[in-house]
Amino acid sequence: MKKKTIAIDMDGVLADIEAQLIEHYNKANGTIVSRESIQGLAEEEAFSDRTLLRGVLNTDNFFRTLPVMPDAVESLQRLQENFEIFIVSAATEFPVSLAEKVAWLGEYFPFIKWENIILCGSKRIINTDYMIDDHCKNLDYCMGKPIMFTAFHNVNQTHHLRVNNWKEAVAYLEETL
Amino acid sequence: MKKKTIAIDMDGVLADIEAQLIEHYNKANGTIVSRESIQGLAEEEAFSDRTLLRGVLNTDNFFRTLPVMPDAVESLQRLQENFEIFIVSAATEFPVSLAEKVAWLGEYFPFIKWENIILCGSKRIINTDYMIDDHCKNLDYCMGKPIMFTAFHNVNQTHHLRVNNWKEAVAYLEETL
Repeated sequence: MKKKTIAIDMDGVLADIEAQLIEHYNKANGTIVSRESIQGLAEEEAFSDRTLLRGVLNTDNFFRTLPVMPDAVESLQRLQENFEIFIVSAATEFPVSLAEKVAWLGEYFPFIKWENIILCGSKRIINTDYMIDDHCKNLDYCMGKPIMFTAFHNVNQTHHLRVNNWKEAVAYLEETL
Repeated sequence: MKKKTIAIDMDGVLADIEAQLIEHYNKANGTIVSRESIQGLAEEEAFSDRTLLRGVLNTDNFFRTLPVMPDAVESLQRLQENFEIFIVSAATEFPVSLAEKVAWLGEYFPFIKWENIILCGSKRIINTDYMIDDHCKNLDYCMGKPIMFTAFHNVNQTHHLRVNNWKEAVAYLEETL
């Protein structure tokens, strides 16, 4: 039988962009933004200097050196037994991130083939059975079943099924088999 | 009314990769491959030294300097009035091509926003109303209406609607409005 497909986001889902963003932003801005202080804020509220934020995101190696989210590697390896996994990451806004994202996946997720990596802008034409993402802008319009992965900016959103970590994501998906 | 969507391939459709490939391949290999000599051949027959071919495709600036296909710019500008255009290009196999493709589009097609650019491997999860591509591996499994753009390697394929150039593509698509 054909495996069901899952589109999995990178930033905030496989990669802990929050930690890296806080560190770089504070260093550049002299602020003391912390994980706790930004809970429930929109990204543009949490990192209010947009020019600085874009500068940070355009920095060489920013995306290449992101920490991996806890349990992400083992979870994808396990899910791959029963699902076809596609990595679907918004990246074309920041061209320097493109090759870095492919290299990052190659380092931590070498079992994901290049055929299954998609770097995009909008995710509106992505059609998979499930989409795991931290942004409403992607989940609200996805063609399959949306699964919201908890991030600071989405804790007050209640209209999607939520998973707080990779263990919960695997448990939910395996329930559907 | 929501505009119908078109996924448009880059290599062989917007960009004349055939001309560039022949030039680079012959220079590296001392061969005399020509447009005429490869008509109807599969890519692996036309460029039989696979290692050399991969080397050429991995060369810095190979994709950045591709010539634009005749009438492509004007055609996309015109189609954009009635359709939503997504550029969908297989690129993750060659990471050096990723940023080059975005820059190339920025130079020749500045009216295409980053939101509408998708760099992928397989196109199997792309869901648009139309897909314009030169490869059966993409068209055979696409979710919308496949439109085959003529290239040397597909001239003997007869199972898809064919357009030989951008003027024909526009004429067909505007007929469907």
